[in-house]
Amino acid sequence: MNVLAVPEASFAVGIDLGGTQVRAALVDGKGTLLARAALPTDKAGGPKAVLGQMQSLVHEVSRSVGLDKVPAVGVASPGPLDARAGVILTIPTLPGWVDIPLVEWLSDWLGKPVTLGNDGVVAAVGEWHFGAGRGLQDFVYVTVSTGIGGGVIADGRVLQGRRSLASHLGHMTVEASGPLCQCGNPGCWEALASGTALGANARAAVLQHPASRLAALTEPLTGQHVFEAAAQGDALAQELVANEGRWLGVGIVNLLHLYSPELVVIGGGVSHGFELLHPIIRQHVDSYAMPPFRSVPIVRAALGSDSGLVGAAALAFMSLAEQP
Amino acid sequence: MNVLAVPEASFAVGIDLGGTQVRAALVDGKGTLLARAALPTDKAGGPKAVLGQMQSLVHEVSRSVGLDKVPAVGVASPGPLDARAGVILTIPTLPGWVDIPLVEWLSDWLGKPVTLGNDGVVAAVGEWHFGAGRGLQDFVYVTVSTGIGGGVIADGRVLQGRRSLASHLGHMTVEASGPLCQCGNPGCWEALASGTALGANARAAVLQHPASRLAALTEPLTGQHVFEAAAQGDALAQELVANEGRWLGVGIVNLLHLYSPELVVIGGGVSHGFELLHPIIRQHVDSYAMPPFRSVPIVRAALGSDSGLVGAAALAFMSLAEQP
Repeated sequence: MNVLAVPEASFAVGIDLGGTQVRAALVDGKGTLLARAALPTDKAGGPKAVLGQMQSLVHEVSRSVGLDKVPAVGVASPGPLDARAGVILTIPTLPGWVDIPLVEWLSDWLGKPVTLGNDGVVAAVGEWHFGAGRGLQDFVYVTVSTGIGGGVIADGRVLQGRRSLASHLGHMTVEASGPLCQCGNPGCWEALASGTALGANARAAVLQHPASRLAALTEPLTGQHVFEAAAQGDALAQELVANEGRWLGVGIVNLLHLYSPELVVIGGGVSHGFELLHPIIRQHVDSYAMPPFRSVPIVRAALGSDSGLVGAAALAFMSLAEQP
Repeated sequence: MNVLAVPEASFAVGIDLGGTQVRAALVDGKGTLLARAALPTDKAGGPKAVLGQMQSLVHEVSRSVGLDKVPAVGVASPGPLDARAGVILTIPTLPGWVDIPLVEWLSDWLGKPVTLGNDGVVAAVGEWHFGAGRGLQDFVYVTVSTGIGGGVIADGRVLQGRRSLASHLGHMTVEASGPLCQCGNPGCWEALASGTALGANARAAVLQHPASRLAALTEPLTGQHVFEAAAQGDALAQELVANEGRWLGVGIVNLLHLYSPELVVIGGGVSHGFELLHPIIRQHVDSYAMPPFRSVPIVRAALGSDSGLVGAAALAFMSLAEQP
């Protein structure tokens, strides 16, 4: 069973915890986002202050239907975290977040069951139930933005592993002699193909190519600028996009060989350049994946930046379906 | 349920198809190997001749208990293959093996249910039910010999994926700028850390180091020679072992981050050097895996070169347990 048997008139709240914003949404059983709200993450206040923000966001987005009509809440959080135990182990971008029993605290405060998941995995769940992966048994969701994360649906279930720590997709070494990742491991996929890497490559490249359209920009260069300039025909930008696409292709070939998905879904900020990247990724996969893996489609996330929000609500629906 | 509820006095036959030998064994419900037999693989005869060899091996190993006391047969085969469909797609080392419906043919001939699995996955199943991975929910088995293969047990089940093609562990790029793999993909783990790679590195290194004990050998250098010379204190051999251990470590860090196993089990020919390799692998993992993954033990396969044979029988027992 991979499509939730949730009555359309059921409701759940999904929360997406990020380093800059805490977002929440009321979602119905069809995956429709009925209300949303967000607050700037209270970094200085620490975990309890941020959990207080989550609590007030739940109240706010539930107002239209009434909080008593919301039986469960799901939370997507950066990790590493132990989803089964409901504990956040650390969040590199949020100082002071070490071994936080988020599920225990938040479910006490709200008086409702709370389910926690790694943000990449939760976004995968969102795309699985309500997005591009609907109805599939095997698919991989990759989010490419500041870092690279994701989640894996394998044989009709969310791949969890020990302490539910599976599918740290960005932290596979694809070029052992390559640049050091912020995790300390050399040549991680994230260090080579994230939006951060694309921006850094662009900033380094303009120093060598002052005639490029990119060199004329006064603000700090990002991946978004590269995609815009490439679409306008700038040769340097097109070369940077080709490099980005090839590195994405290298990692995707690995994911095909390791998980054998029916579909690869790309989300995150870099997916704004999907039209430009897709032919390059496709060509790499068609050249380097072993033949039985070459026909697997690669598509853009259907839920865009809401995969995690909607996925967190789907996680809540799943937890209800699993109850005896 | 990850320990088979098989009565000890049940029997199954496991077959391990290799490029040089076809092996078969009668195995009881405790995983004990009661009889074994082998034939040189009839490469020239093609698939039907080899299936004939399998048939006669099944008869031979079943003689002591009687063929009617053997309710099912399991086959481990090189791939890629579609285990669910029971079809071998191709076997690079066996010419003429393309889209062979092995399960259909062999079960017709034997009048018994036959189950097929990729050799790496089947060996993982053997170690899971009767070896080093007994009782675990999440573990990864890696076989390092001519190539690198393996299988993944995730969340208490064998990871299958689309067309049961998951866990081609040897074909993840770990050094994109590295040597081309025989699969056509650059820098696969197999191209850098297999026994074949170790032997090739040794043959290249002795040209530069004529004083090494390895340079004195008259036969073609293999990984086994390297381990022996390293154990005897040869500096070049120790350097080659250190390089092999580091590359194994690079791939194992990836497997930890991607699958989050509780245990990593190493089998195959290169595991003969396990005592020498283990401290090097361990040091690499302790340095480069993300902290929550560092405590995962890495051990040698308990069933040695019989993981696949015993695993093929375990596959047969599993198929019986799954019947209505």
